[in-house]
Parts: sequence; structure tokens; C-alpha cells
Amino acid sequence: MELKEKQLKSEQIYKGAIINLFLDDISLPDGNTAKREYVRHPGGICVVPVTDEGEIMLVRQYRYPYGEEVIEIPAGKRDSADEDPLEGGKRELKEELGITAEKFISLGTFYPTPGYTDEVIYMYAAFGLTFGETDPDEDEFVLPEKIKLEKLVDMIMAGEIPDGKTQAAVLKVAHLLKNTDS
Amino acid sequence: MELKEKQLKSEQIYKGAIINLFLDDISLPDGNTAKREYVRHPGGICVVPVTDEGEIMLVRQYRYPYGEEVIEIPAGKRDSADEDPLEGGKRELKEELGITAEKFISLGTFYPTPGYTDEVIYMYAAFGLTFGETDPDEDEFVLPEKIKLEKLVDMIMAGEIPDGKTQAAVLKVAHLLKNTDS
Repeated sequence: MELKEKQLKSEQIYKGAIINLFLDDISLPDGNTAKREYVRHPGGICVVPVTDEGEIMLVRQYRYPYGEEVIEIPAGKRDSADEDPLEGGKRELKEELGITAEKFISLGTFYPTPGYTDEVIYMYAAFGLTFGETDPDEDEFVLPEKIKLEKLVDMIMAGEIPDGKTQAAVLKVAHLLKNTDS
Repeated sequence: MELKEKQLKSEQIYKGAIINLFLDDISLPDGNTAKREYVRHPGGICVVPVTDEGEIMLVRQYRYPYGEEVIEIPAGKRDSADEDPLEGGKRELKEELGITAEKFISLGTFYPTPGYTDEVIYMYAAFGLTFGETDPDEDEFVLPEKIKLEKLVDMIMAGEIPDGKTQAAVLKVAHLLKNTDS
């Protein structure tokens, strides 16, 4: 079965500082038409910083859409579509936690919610950390958190870490290190 | 440090069939003001269906924002904010794969991209599956996929499964079953 949906018409509803909203008319595989409303986003990067003692460095941040503080791995949007994702990861790690790292490992990409956004988040793990000064964005306020990997996995399994990219990336790191050790 | 961002003004930019877009003026922890643009969404549910043979049932679906087919665990949006998430999970499982299940286990919640959406996805694993007729939404075309859990974990680790909720929920199931077995 052919699954492809074809664009018939595309209308930009909103052009924002970060997100752009579109409403498109499409044709379905059965020939009928439908609407698709979705966000275009420049894409993001996130990094799991692993200390030599097996701790994960995180940030606590107020997330306005949820009206609550959320604990996440350091992350941010790409400066532009031209920015190399790994360079973006190094930048976010420095900005939010003041960390530079000797070694980065790719953890693949992450589509946050494919029904209505085109955002691609590039995921990395970072090792060999050096701690220095942070360099936060002017409208961004974050507090550092440090949690042992085993404890963080337990928190994820207990539903205490709702952020999706943090769940996926930290479980990947746990899987990776377990298979490296054995 | 106080991290809370306070709403000063909220403007609805777009009222859609599924997503609503808002642009708010807020006050930051340091007293300065900033803008927050974000989507309000009714929320979603996803389910990892595990067969008695240790296979995971998935769906292949064309995701228009990415312009590609994506393999995901069955998922959908809540019919309304009143719909019990577990009932929504049972409904999506039946609609997309024709499956009913004897036993459900909660895998917690998943915030897909907390910078610009308030969507909460409730995650479940399902066991004791019975296969019957599907009941798809009229504008939704999906094909079933069946992959051994161990192989799916390898695919996730290799970056071959970009969908975020699928990465997180399947890695949780793998962790859960590994700890149950031992």
C-alpha cells in the first residue's frame, strides 16, 4: 500500500521567533483530501553529559507550557539549519552547564511528536568532562542537577522524569554502558 | 533561585482542529519580560504491544511534516481531556492494529518537546494480546509491523527508529522485562 500524502496547497498561518505554523491541504492514499496543521522548527540538539564517576549532569528549568519545573538533559535549538549538530551540542553544553567534553558519541535522532512538528533533535553522549563558567541565553534560567546514572534510570522507570528526550537518551546511555562493561 | 515564569498576557494566534497556538508575554525570574510561543494540544496515548513470543507490534505511517514513513508504536491523541488515558490506549490499539489486551502496565508520561507544547503522552505496555479487525480513522493509513524486542532495541540503538516515544517506551519495556526475568 502506498502511504504517501501529497501536498495540494500550503498556507503559512504564523511566522514566529522559533516556530512557524502551517496549514496544508493534502491528498490521502485513497485519493480523498484532508488538512494537516503542523509546526516547522529549526531543530534541536541534546547531550547526556556523563562524569567519570558515572553521574549524569542535568538542568532544572521552568517550562512555561506545562507551568512546572522540568528536569532535562542540556538541550537547545540549532542556531541555524547550517549549524553542525555536534557543534550545537558543544555550544549548549557550555552555555547551560559550563561543560566542555573530550569525547562525544552520537545517539541518533529523535522525532518529538511527528503528527504536528518537523523538529529533528540530534542526541549525543559526552565523556571526559571539564567544568567551567556557564554562558546562558538572556531569557533562559536553569539550575544544574547531578544524578547517578543508576538512580536516574530508576527515576525514569518510576515515571519521575517526564521529558521525552531525557528518557530516550539516558536509557540509550545506560544500555550502551552496560553492553560496554560486559 | 526562583525559576517560575509568570503570564502577563496571552493571545491565541490559531485555533485548529487538533492544535491551538498561543503567543504570551511573560515575566522572567529576573523581572525582565519575554515572549513564549507554544502549542496547546489535547494530549496523547501510546502503547507497546508485546506478544507472547516477545515481539513488539508497530505501525508504519506516513508522517507529513517529515515527508517520510515512520515506524512507531500505536498511538493517537485523546478524544477529549475527559477520556481516561488507559481507555484511549485501548481504543488506539484496537483502531490501528485490531488488538485487545488482557493486561496493561503504565510506563509513565512523556513530554515530547517542552519548549513549545503542553502535550502529555501517556505510555503503556500491553500483554496477553488478541488479534481482530482494525478500525482506522478515515484520514489515517497505517501498515502493521512486527519486530522482536531484542532486534527493535538494536534498531533503536543504531538510530534506525527516530520516533521519540517509541525509543523511550520500548527501552522502558526492555528494561522492565530484563529486570523481571533476572
